[in-house]
Amino acid sequence: MHRTDFDVPVKLENHPLIESIAVDLPAPSLNDNTADLDRLARTLGQLGRSPVQIAPGKMNKLVRKIRGNDLCFRAVVGYTGTHWEVLDVVARSPDSAVFGFALDLGTSRLVFQLIDIARKKVIREVSEKNPQAVWGEDILSRIIFARDQEGLALLRDSLVKACSDAMLKMIEDSGIRAHCIYAVSCAGNTAMSHFFWGLDPSNICREPYIPAANTFPIVRAKELGFDFFPNALLYLFPNVGSYVGGDIISGVIASGLNRSTGIQMLIDVGTNAEIVLGNSEWLMACAGAAGPALEGGVVERGMQAVSGAIDKVRIDRKTLDPDFRVIGGGKASGVCGSGLIELVAEMFSSKILNIQGKFSTGLRCPRLRNTPDGPAYVLALSSQTGDGREMLISEIDIGIFLKSKAAMYTILSLICRKVGLSFGDLKNIYIAGNFGNHIDPEMAVRIGMIPDLPLETYHGIGNSSLLGASMLMCNRTLLAEAQKVRDMVTYIELNVNIELMNEFRGALFIPHTDPKLFPSVRIPQSGPQSLNTQV
Amino acid sequence: MHRTDFDVPVKLENHPLIESIAVDLPAPSLNDNTADLDRLARTLGQLGRSPVQIAPGKMNKLVRKIRGNDLCFRAVVGYTGTHWEVLDVVARSPDSAVFGFALDLGTSRLVFQLIDIARKKVIREVSEKNPQAVWGEDILSRIIFARDQEGLALLRDSLVKACSDAMLKMIEDSGIRAHCIYAVSCAGNTAMSHFFWGLDPSNICREPYIPAANTFPIVRAKELGFDFFPNALLYLFPNVGSYVGGDIISGVIASGLNRSTGIQMLIDVGTNAEIVLGNSEWLMACAGAAGPALEGGVVERGMQAVSGAIDKVRIDRKTLDPDFRVIGGGKASGVCGSGLIELVAEMFSSKILNIQGKFSTGLRCPRLRNTPDGPAYVLALSSQTGDGREMLISEIDIGIFLKSKAAMYTILSLICRKVGLSFGDLKNIYIAGNFGNHIDPEMAVRIGMIPDLPLETYHGIGNSSLLGASMLMCNRTLLAEAQKVRDMVTYIELNVNIELMNEFRGALFIPHTDPKLFPSVRIPQSGPQSLNTQV
Repeated sequence: MHRTDFDVPVKLENHPLIESIAVDLPAPSLNDNTADLDRLARTLGQLGRSPVQIAPGKMNKLVRKIRGNDLCFRAVVGYTGTHWEVLDVVARSPDSAVFGFALDLGTSRLVFQLIDIARKKVIREVSEKNPQAVWGEDILSRIIFARDQEGLALLRDSLVKACSDAMLKMIEDSGIRAHCIYAVSCAGNTAMSHFFWGLDPSNICREPYIPAANTFPIVRAKELGFDFFPNALLYLFPNVGSYVGGDIISGVIASGLNRSTGIQMLIDVGTNAEIVLGNSEWLMACAGAAGPALEGGVVERGMQAVSGAIDKVRIDRKTLDPDFRVIGGGKASGVCGSGLIELVAEMFSSKILNIQGKFSTGLRCPRLRNTPDGPAYVLALSSQTGDGREMLISEIDIGIFLKSKAAMYTILSLICRKVGLSFGDLKNIYIAGNFGNHIDPEMAVRIGMIPDLPLETYHGIGNSSLLGASMLMCNRTLLAEAQKVRDMVTYIELNVNIELMNEFRGALFIPHTDPKLFPSVRIPQSGPQSLNTQV
Repeated sequence: MHRTDFDVPVKLENHPLIESIAVDLPAPSLNDNTADLDRLARTLGQLGRSPVQIAPGKMNKLVRKIRGNDLCFRAVVGYTGTHWEVLDVVARSPDSAVFGFALDLGTSRLVFQLIDIARKKVIREVSEKNPQAVWGEDILSRIIFARDQEGLALLRDSLVKACSDAMLKMIEDSGIRAHCIYAVSCAGNTAMSHFFWGLDPSNICREPYIPAANTFPIVRAKELGFDFFPNALLYLFPNVGSYVGGDIISGVIASGLNRSTGIQMLIDVGTNAEIVLGNSEWLMACAGAAGPALEGGVVERGMQAVSGAIDKVRIDRKTLDPDFRVIGGGKASGVCGSGLIELVAEMFSSKILNIQGKFSTGLRCPRLRNTPDGPAYVLALSSQTGDGREMLISEIDIGIFLKSKAAMYTILSLICRKVGLSFGDLKNIYIAGNFGNHIDPEMAVRIGMIPDLPLETYHGIGNSSLLGASMLMCNRTLLAEAQKVRDMVTYIELNVNIELMNEFRGALFIPHTDPKLFPSVRIPQSGPQSLNTQV
């Protein structure tokens, strides 16, 4: 899957991480015996780039290029937070080719953007499966696999190779030369960051859950194995701790929570659901296992929101027949998270499901089947699917899905309560993740997954981890901002909590046992009665 | 040639460049989720070492050692001028093994000191021939040889290999393990520094004589090819320009010119003679070709002040027979610079030479020979020499030597005049170089090589370039001081100068055409008359 040519949505001032600066060095003379490289550093300082550093292995090459260009050239410099690194000296041409990669190191998918830094343009976006999945779909299995050095090396090498292969193919496809790549900006969760850096991740899942490292120095990309980018700096977003990784910090930066006076919320639905709440004064984060079903990973015919996934569903109130949209057109392979939300919402509104998420008894409809696992709804006919099989959604599937949506609502409710807020205090809610690009907030409210707020409160921002990484490349002030966000975030542990269990039980219903929480949702007339006796 | 076990003469406070610090990390808990490495950085910060950096390739190893030592260990940290680099984590033992190398990268010789940094002890000193000599004894030939990349690579590789071999043998002979070497501190002239760093030196000898680099970042030793020291930082003293290198900056640091309120002078007699004059307020430097004969390199039987060299000479005023000392005992192989000074001084005082440096006519003495090259004096009989040949010093040899001593005096005189000083304003004069260890100031004054000042003004300080490099390892405040000295030094060009030629002619005599300049020197009665007609 790849996209091409769209803007990096950087609304802030223009302070790129990498700059190509026209330099005319004053000619050396007997009266000014400053050495070539010191002369370059002095001139860059006069142009506001100070202090300057040059990697020892680069010095001779740069001197030859300075002299070879008769002291008149472009210096490509990269900011590291504390100094400017001279990455290259190139011939003076009006068109400066300064490119970089943004990487989202996801547990299940790796996403890459090739970016024209000077123009703030995304030239190409590619998404690949994370090859580490062969050693465990979930991150915990991989952490256990990495307990010995060999396992860690296997996981790291497969990750670096997949990233290398993808990036090399992208520059080849775009006709860009490897030495024009000057930055690689990466964000991942804490375990993925450890794998990427070759760090022992074993303490991430052992009480008291202390990672090996939370902050990472800016290094030459070749130091992490990307030898083919001789001029690139590599940046990895810092983690808050084992449960809040650089992907979330990057997401906060992308959504701008930390720059807002009003209170805002970021919901990142990936393999886990991760929530950040706050403003420019404070930020709180929590994480919970709400994700897999929402990402389509647990439901039998579930899948990620990629080509072939059903992402939109409408059910005719009379015939109870579904109408749906398949991502990329063509036949359906499965249903993604937003598809499931719409399916359940529509099944509920058309009275196929009751508020408990059970199929209504005595309902007559050609789309209903009795299976060994109980009743099921035919979402797609065999003629509509890629494999020629009917796509069934069972009561079990719906039960699994409702647990995810209940977990999500509970987490949102709890984190607000923890800081003494009600949902009405939230100015904006950003829904990130691939999921966030496809979700219809009205549908998600209807099933009680997210609070019943004005729909304009909700904003899908897509892959916010990737977005933060690409924004950083076009705005170096975000380097310090990311570090500040990391230091500000307080992590709230929600996992083992009796309060959560009580909340959760009410949220398992559609939309909730307490309809006052969802005043905008029309509860169908013929739902089951006397809820309290059934809980 | 090697020496063992003497102190690094650091009179300043105890601020070693490398420190081994006992660390007890607070145990991680659910309430303190700081990552292992961030916890280490925080604790080192509390102990006054901040900011802290860790090389990306080291992170995993350090985490394993931190955990392997149950959070109680020694952190070996090195100062870089801007931050502390964590070099290693080792088991907590009362005895911390922290070693380093000081290197003097001389044009003709490489000198190495293995230093116990914590104890400020030189464990071993070794001196080797510079292997680059096969591509040219003089630095200019080597610079020309290095004009293409292959030539530069050959020169650099031979230098790095010679340094590697010497250092590896030294640690083997001392029973020290390579991972206990934490610093390599080097000083050399500008060309040698360029060779060492692999930098193109060609502009050093092309007008306007601008080196590729004057300052060098502190790097991991492995970055320059010293892979076998996995934990070592490498420091190379900065240059002022093509003619004043890091060896001189290191010498200024060693002699303390820059810390003195009174005006002092440093004379470094190596392949060139290099002079620095000044105090804590200002420093001026100049260089001139006074060196080779003084180092024994031009005179036929001349040699460096190493084993087998005659370094002290007395001549019986009546018999005109010489008595001499051979360095290391045994038979004589040649005569070194200080031996030549004493020989000429004694030949002058015993009237064998007149004030023009010619053999006195009509002198009868069994030690005088007539050779095809003119008259000569037998310094050593065939029974006293290693090769069984008489050691003759001819009038031609003496003529060459007198040019060197005249050049030296002229340079000293000119640099003082340039800044409006007379010799009497000089509080201390430090004579550096191997030469400086052996020279007797009274003898040097007698021949008019150095000004006629109270003898206590003169101090031989040996290899000041090596001394500064070793002092730096035991005192990190010298890092900033070296940079400050570099920025302070003003270079004075003396090379092409009519004034110098006039001065020089007078200084060719013994001690000088103007005896008022050398009131303490007793001019022998029967010297030739009417000087003026003969000049």
